[in-house]
Amino acid sequence: MASRPRPDRGRLHPVNLILLFDEDFNEHDDAARRACDAGEEFKVELRGRRLDHARDVLRATPGRELLVGRLGGRVGRGVVVSIEPAKLVLRVRLDAEPPPKLPLTLLLSLPRPKTLRRVLQAVATMGVARLVLLNSWRVEKSFWKSPALAPAALRAELLLGLEQGRDTVLPQVDTKRLLVPFARRELDPLAAGTRRLLADPGATTPCPRALAGPITLALGPEGGFIDRELDLFARHAFEPITLGPRPLRVEQAVAALIGRIG
Amino acid sequence: MASRPRPDRGRLHPVNLILLFDEDFNEHDDAARRACDAGEEFKVELRGRRLDHARDVLRATPGRELLVGRLGGRVGRGVVVSIEPAKLVLRVRLDAEPPPKLPLTLLLSLPRPKTLRRVLQAVATMGVARLVLLNSWRVEKSFWKSPALAPAALRAELLLGLEQGRDTVLPQVDTKRLLVPFARRELDPLAAGTRRLLADPGATTPCPRALAGPITLALGPEGGFIDRELDLFARHAFEPITLGPRPLRVEQAVAALIGRIG
Repeated sequence: MASRPRPDRGRLHPVNLILLFDEDFNEHDDAARRACDAGEEFKVELRGRRLDHARDVLRATPGRELLVGRLGGRVGRGVVVSIEPAKLVLRVRLDAEPPPKLPLTLLLSLPRPKTLRRVLQAVATMGVARLVLLNSWRVEKSFWKSPALAPAALRAELLLGLEQGRDTVLPQVDTKRLLVPFARRELDPLAAGTRRLLADPGATTPCPRALAGPITLALGPEGGFIDRELDLFARHAFEPITLGPRPLRVEQAVAALIGRIG
Repeated sequence: MASRPRPDRGRLHPVNLILLFDEDFNEHDDAARRACDAGEEFKVELRGRRLDHARDVLRATPGRELLVGRLGGRVGRGVVVSIEPAKLVLRVRLDAEPPPKLPLTLLLSLPRPKTLRRVLQAVATMGVARLVLLNSWRVEKSFWKSPALAPAALRAELLLGLEQGRDTVLPQVDTKRLLVPFARRELDPLAAGTRRLLADPGATTPCPRALAGPITLALGPEGGFIDRELDLFARHAFEPITLGPRPLRVEQAVAALIGRIG
């Protein structure tokens, strides 16, 4: 096989997306901003992590095409104009919409910080529209004090997830430290018009497949919700469902549930 | 809700399984071994990691019931007889079969070591019967030198995964460093009688759902297989399928694919 040419797929890194932020359009860059918004070509200069990534991971050289997207906006392609020690210059045109979000709100017991980071990335990568982090009986109190819950830390993981999934739109993330008041005041409005599912290791109904409409999916901690929490969700019309007899880690359960219902 | 008693579910840790190994039955323990094999009650003394886990994580006290399984054998319950500084004594009866394996052989491009550890755990937890780690164009050569590939390291991750998934049966894991000879000599016999799928970010056919029969599923590196590798699998009757436009991390893809096809 060595005689065949290196395939074209190598030209475009097929995974990552380089995200552009408002800060990338400095105050003198109104023309670039207008061109960006109109789907026309513009130039942008990148520094820091994105420069390092393009140079060291993607090994980009002038002429190389990269996937680019603007945070909250469209996606498209950028061609490397130059790579200097302190900046990467790209000629960019953003002319496509990012992939649609899954109409899925995930209600998740706050996992341990290391798991939270992976779940945040997975939520952004897989296109979950909204994540609500909940307290529950088996959530360790210390998890609520983790620096991983700081808004900047949450955002950093979500951005990594967007880059992985070629998306530009941050999922909405909320934290609810008091389950009972949240359930009483906010759960029904939040889940209105959606199919309400609760993944529970003790459930007997298999998780449904390929749901077309919007879903609100509650997922407990690795030990599961306790009985009175299950009762609480049952009173709010959540159907208990299971992925089978094997208890999964939270990040495995999130991905497997999305694979099943998505 | 504070007036309701702490629920019974708390008595039994609903996630972990304590695995027993041959070494736990010492040479004078023929009676225990026979009782174990006959599904009768026997006593076993545990030290080291399992003692620490029962004491520090499960906070087990005498009378506490734990899920127990014998590596490669049955599962059941153990009651804590005593916890001493150096040993945990359990009265055990193993009278149930572990959950059935998925009839799934996963052919996976060798991921980076950190990802490999998570994938090995996921494979064991989720019940994949067999994992074949393959070389491919986009696999970094250094990955093949990782200590994570040593048999003892592979086994350690698989055991963690079995404990998580309440299984006792190790999946079969093989490594194939040369893709072309593997494909020529071993791929057809290995995949005979199975549905052959290849997860590829560029495919247009959605991944099928809820497959009843045995499956061989090939999954490339995060950049995907290159075209000539895709051709190779196509010549061996693998159907390219996709989970959608969002490229997933390997461990997310494994869990999502199992959620979809399982």
